[in-house]
Amino acid sequence: MLEDVYAACRDDLSGTPADYIPELAAVAPDAFGLCLATADGLVYRVGDTETGFTIQSISKPFTYALALADRGVDGVAAHIDVEPSGEPFNEISLEPQTQRPSNPMINSGAITAASLVSGRDAADKFERVRRCYSRFAGRELRMNEAVYESEARTGYRNRAIGYMLRSVNVIDDDPDDAVDRYFRQCSIETTCADLAVMAATLADNGVNPTTRERALSTSLTERVLSVMTTCGMYNAAGDWVTTVGLPAKSGVGGGIIAVLPGQLGISVYSPRLDAQGNSVRGVAACRELSRRLELHFCHVTRSARTAIRADYTVAQLPSRLRRSPEDAAVLSAHGERARIYELHGDLLFAGAERTVRAIEGRAGELEALVIDLRRVGEVSAVARGMLDTLQADLVAAGCRVALVDPDARLGHEVSSLDPRDPRGRVFIDRDTATEWCEDIVLEKHRPPGVQAAHSMGLDEHPMLAGLVAADRARLTPDFVLRTLARGEVIAEHGDPRSGLYLILDGRVRVTFPGTDGRVHRLVTLTAGMSFGEIPMLIGEPVVNAVVAETQVRVAVLVPAVFDALTDAHPKLKLALLQRLAAGAYAQMEATVRTISANAGNY
Amino acid sequence: MLEDVYAACRDDLSGTPADYIPELAAVAPDAFGLCLATADGLVYRVGDTETGFTIQSISKPFTYALALADRGVDGVAAHIDVEPSGEPFNEISLEPQTQRPSNPMINSGAITAASLVSGRDAADKFERVRRCYSRFAGRELRMNEAVYESEARTGYRNRAIGYMLRSVNVIDDDPDDAVDRYFRQCSIETTCADLAVMAATLADNGVNPTTRERALSTSLTERVLSVMTTCGMYNAAGDWVTTVGLPAKSGVGGGIIAVLPGQLGISVYSPRLDAQGNSVRGVAACRELSRRLELHFCHVTRSARTAIRADYTVAQLPSRLRRSPEDAAVLSAHGERARIYELHGDLLFAGAERTVRAIEGRAGELEALVIDLRRVGEVSAVARGMLDTLQADLVAAGCRVALVDPDARLGHEVSSLDPRDPRGRVFIDRDTATEWCEDIVLEKHRPPGVQAAHSMGLDEHPMLAGLVAADRARLTPDFVLRTLARGEVIAEHGDPRSGLYLILDGRVRVTFPGTDGRVHRLVTLTAGMSFGEIPMLIGEPVVNAVVAETQVRVAVLVPAVFDALTDAHPKLKLALLQRLAAGAYAQMEATVRTISANAGNY
Repeated sequence: MLEDVYAACRDDLSGTPADYIPELAAVAPDAFGLCLATADGLVYRVGDTETGFTIQSISKPFTYALALADRGVDGVAAHIDVEPSGEPFNEISLEPQTQRPSNPMINSGAITAASLVSGRDAADKFERVRRCYSRFAGRELRMNEAVYESEARTGYRNRAIGYMLRSVNVIDDDPDDAVDRYFRQCSIETTCADLAVMAATLADNGVNPTTRERALSTSLTERVLSVMTTCGMYNAAGDWVTTVGLPAKSGVGGGIIAVLPGQLGISVYSPRLDAQGNSVRGVAACRELSRRLELHFCHVTRSARTAIRADYTVAQLPSRLRRSPEDAAVLSAHGERARIYELHGDLLFAGAERTVRAIEGRAGELEALVIDLRRVGEVSAVARGMLDTLQADLVAAGCRVALVDPDARLGHEVSSLDPRDPRGRVFIDRDTATEWCEDIVLEKHRPPGVQAAHSMGLDEHPMLAGLVAADRARLTPDFVLRTLARGEVIAEHGDPRSGLYLILDGRVRVTFPGTDGRVHRLVTLTAGMSFGEIPMLIGEPVVNAVVAETQVRVAVLVPAVFDALTDAHPKLKLALLQRLAAGAYAQMEATVRTISANAGNY
Repeated sequence: MLEDVYAACRDDLSGTPADYIPELAAVAPDAFGLCLATADGLVYRVGDTETGFTIQSISKPFTYALALADRGVDGVAAHIDVEPSGEPFNEISLEPQTQRPSNPMINSGAITAASLVSGRDAADKFERVRRCYSRFAGRELRMNEAVYESEARTGYRNRAIGYMLRSVNVIDDDPDDAVDRYFRQCSIETTCADLAVMAATLADNGVNPTTRERALSTSLTERVLSVMTTCGMYNAAGDWVTTVGLPAKSGVGGGIIAVLPGQLGISVYSPRLDAQGNSVRGVAACRELSRRLELHFCHVTRSARTAIRADYTVAQLPSRLRRSPEDAAVLSAHGERARIYELHGDLLFAGAERTVRAIEGRAGELEALVIDLRRVGEVSAVARGMLDTLQADLVAAGCRVALVDPDARLGHEVSSLDPRDPRGRVFIDRDTATEWCEDIVLEKHRPPGVQAAHSMGLDEHPMLAGLVAADRARLTPDFVLRTLARGEVIAEHGDPRSGLYLILDGRVRVTFPGTDGRVHRLVTLTAGMSFGEIPMLIGEPVVNAVVAETQVRVAVLVPAVFDALTDAHPKLKLALLQRLAAGAYAQMEATVRTISANAGNY
C-alpha cells in the first residue's frame, strides 16, 4: 500500500526546493522517500528513506518539547502562546495584547523556545537539544556544518526576530545565542526513516518504540501534538485537519511528519515545495495515506466502549476446588450472588464508565465480586478512580471485592484481609479468587446442619459408606492409612500407578503443565473424594501430578490388593467401580457446566 | 464526577448574557446545566438540563452537515472554505483570493451553508433543517417564535453579510431567504440534554445513540468534526485544542457542545459569556471534564494495537469431533500446521497491520488457517482489503483459509468450496472450522496404511476386540444391532438409561444446552467409540442429548442384560468396565489438553 501511494504521488514534479541558501538548493530535487513506523517500532519504507537532509522547521515541535520539559507548561506559556497565527511562518509580528509569539511553530515562537532550553552554556544547551532529538530518533543525530554556516551567515530576518523578541522581553537573555541555537537545530541532519521513528515516538506517548526509551512525558506529548494539530502546517491548518486529520509538521528541507496518536508515525521526504512552503509530494502522500488507511483522528475505534470481556457467576463457572455434594448444591442455588468480571483492552473513561455501570446494575444482588484485570492494558487515572469508588461503594453495601491484578494495575500492591477495607483482596489468578468468592457464598448460605469439608474416618468415606455392611467390613482392612505433609508430592506425571486413594482429611491438588510453561491446578480434592481410579483400573501410568495442599490423611488400596479383588470378590469390586463411576459422572457434569458457561466463546 | 465539576464551576458568575435582543437578555443569567451522553445513549445530567434556550451558533455545524449531505463535499467547498479565520465570528470579510467565507462556523459561512440546503421552497428548506436537528436530538425540536422575530427585526449585520455574499456570487439566489433561514435555525429551542444527544450523535459516527437513527453519514461526520476542531471556538481554537482537545461549538445562547469521537458528547448551558462570546462556565466545565476524564483526543487508547485475542493450533485445541487414536496421533504430530486466530475489537489499519504481520510470519509453516471474526466490531475498508490480500497470498502459497464470520463482516457472503478460491470457506462457528482444518491436516499426513473413521463389524469394535475370545463370544450375542436415520434423536436429557451403545458406522453428536439458549456440540463420536456407559453403570437418567449426525449403525447392550451380567459373569463385566474406563481416560486426556491450551485464560 505504501508503494501504491508512492507510485501515485511520484510523478508530481511541481514546486521547487528551497533555495535561500546554496546548500538547500543543491539537493536532488526529485528525491522521494516515504516511511510509516508502527507504535511497536517497525518501519515500513519506500524510496529514498536513507538520504540525509536537514530537519529545518520539523525541529520546532521537538525543541518546544524540550523547553516544556525544562520550564514546565506555565513557564513556557508565559513566553509562547498556542494560537494559529494566520500569518506566514517568518512574520515579524507578535500578539497585540501579550506581545508573545502566537505559537511555537512559527519562527518567532521557535526561537523563543530555543531560548528556554536549559544548560550550563550555549554549547551545553545545544548538546541537550541534539540529544533530545536523538532520543526521539533512536540514534545519534549530527549537525550539518555547511548548512549551519550558511544559515548563520544569511539569517538576517531571524536575527531581526530575535532582537524584536528581546526588545519586548519575550527572550530574557542574549538573542544571538537563541537564534544561533535555532540555526543549529534546523541544521541537524535526519533521514526519512529517522523522522518516521520520531513521529512514532510522539504517537507512542513519548516513548521511542525502537529503543523503548522515554523521550517525553505523556502529558507533554499531548501538548506538543495539540499544537501541531492547529499550527503545524503553516496556513493550511484547516484544510490539513479536514483532509488529513493528523497532527503534523513540515520543514523547508522537504520533510513532513504526521502522527496518529497511539498508533503510528508517517514521514515523507521530497524537496519540491508549494507556495506555503510544504513539500508538494509530502502533502499529497499524507493525504493519500490518511484516506487509504483511514487515519483521520475523527475516524476512531469503538473498542474503548466494551471493556468487559466476559462476566459470569460462580454457579456458571466454579473454581477448580471440587466441593462436596452439599456445598455444590449451595453454590448451585446461591452462586449467582458471586460474580466474576473479566476486563480487557485499555481502560479509559468511556470503557470504565460502561464497566462501572454494568457492575452497579447488579450491586444489590451481589455478595462477592471479582474483577480480573490481567488482560487490561493502560489504566487511566480517571478509570482507576472510578473503580476505586465502585469498590468502596460495594464494600460499604456489604459486598466483598477482590481483584485479579498481579501487576497492580489499580495500584493495590497488597491484598487486604480486612473485610471492611474498600481496597479488598488482590489475587494473582482467577481460580483462587473464584474459590474465595465461593467460600463467602457458602459461609452465608450453608444450611445450619451442614458442615464444610471435614475430617472423616474411613468408614464414613462415601466410597465405602454406600456399600452394604458386609462388603464394607471386608474391604476396610485392605486399605492402608497414610499421613502426608503439606507440599509432599504424592504422584508425578509418568509414575506407575500406586493405588486408589480415598481422602479422609485435608486438600490434595491435581496439576498439569500449561503451554505457558507454568504448572496449573486441574482440580483440588477434599475429604470424601478419591483419586488414582483410572490408572488403577487400566494399569496406565499417572497422567496428572498430585501434591498435598495441606497436611493430608488418605486411605490407599494398593495395586496388588486392588487387582486381586477381581478374582477374590468380583461383585464387591463391581460395586466399588460403580461408586467410582458416580464420581466420574459428577466430574463430567462439572466439565459440561464449564463448557456450557463458555459456549459463547467457542 | 459530573456533580464535582458542576460544583467546581458553579460559583463563577463572571461574564454577562448576550443582550443584543431582549429575548436573550431575559434569560435567568445564572442557570447552569451540564450533561454527558455516552455513545450508547445514556445521558448523565446535573442542574438545569431541561431549561429551553435557543441553539444559536451551535446550529452552524448541523446546517453545514445538511448542506454537505445535500450538495456533496465539493459542492459545498466551492462556496465555503474550512480555514480558521482569526477574526471575530460576525466579521464582514471573505478570503482575498477565492472570495469564500473562511469556514462554516463564522456567520458568513453559516449563512452560505443555509443557502445551500435543498428544498422545494423556503418553508420546505427550513422544515428540512428542523427535521435534521431533530434527528440529531432524537426528539422534535421547535422554533422559538419570539426570538426569531426579534433576530429578524434587528439582524442588520447578518443581512449585510447576506448581500455581500450575493454580490460576490457565493450565494446564488435570494440572500434574504438564506439569512431568514439562518435566523430561524438560530432560534430553534433546545435543552442542555438535547445538545448532549446531538453531540453524542456526532460522536457515534452520525448515528443517534438513543433512537439508533442515522442523522449523518460517517464520512461527513468526520468532516464536520474536523471543522469544529479548528474553527468551533471562535478565536480560542489553539487554547481549546491544547487544554480541552475536543471538537466543539458554542453559541451566544450560552450553550457549548463538545465531542469525543467514538465515545461521548458533552453539553453545557450557562448564559454568561466571556469576551470571545463563549459561555464562561461552559468553557471552564469542558476544560475540567477533559482534564478529569482524560478526554483529550491525543490521549488515545492503545487497544487498536492488539487485534489478536488468541491463537493456537488444532493440536492445542482440537475440534469436538473425537478422532480415532490413529488420527489423534497424526493431529498431535502435525496439528501445528493448522492454526486458529481469534480477533477482537475494531479492525482499523493499525490493528489489521499487526494481525497480518503476525499471520504472515507463520505463513510458511501453515497448511490451513482459520480467522475467527465473531468478536470483531467495526471493520474498516482498509482492514478488509488487507485481510483479503493476506487470504489471497496464503491461498496462492497452498494454505487453505476459512473465516468464522456469521455476520459477513469481511463481505464474504458465501462459503467457497473451491480450494483455489482466495475467498475461502466461511463457517458460522469455530468448532466446525477447526474440524475442517483437522481434515486438511489428516488428508496430508495420515500414513498410507491408516484409514479415516470407517464402518466396522461388532467383533472389530475396540470395546469387544480387546476381550479374550471366549468373553467376546459370550458377550456378542447380547448386543442388539440398530440402524438410525440421520437426525434421529437417540436420547434426550432426562431419559431413563436405555443401553450401552457401541458405534459401528456413522457419526453421533452429543449436545448440551448453552447459557446462550442454543444447543451446542459437546462432542461428535464416530465408529469404534461408545456412549451411554455412565448412566448404565450408576442407573441415572441421561444427562446429554444424543442425536445421529449421519445414518448410524450401533450395537446396544440394553439395561436388563447389562445388569444381569453382574451376577452371571462378574469378571466379564469387570473386563468390559475396564475397556470403558480406558475410553473415559482418553476423554479426560483430551479435556486436560483443552484446559491446558486455555491455561493462560484462567
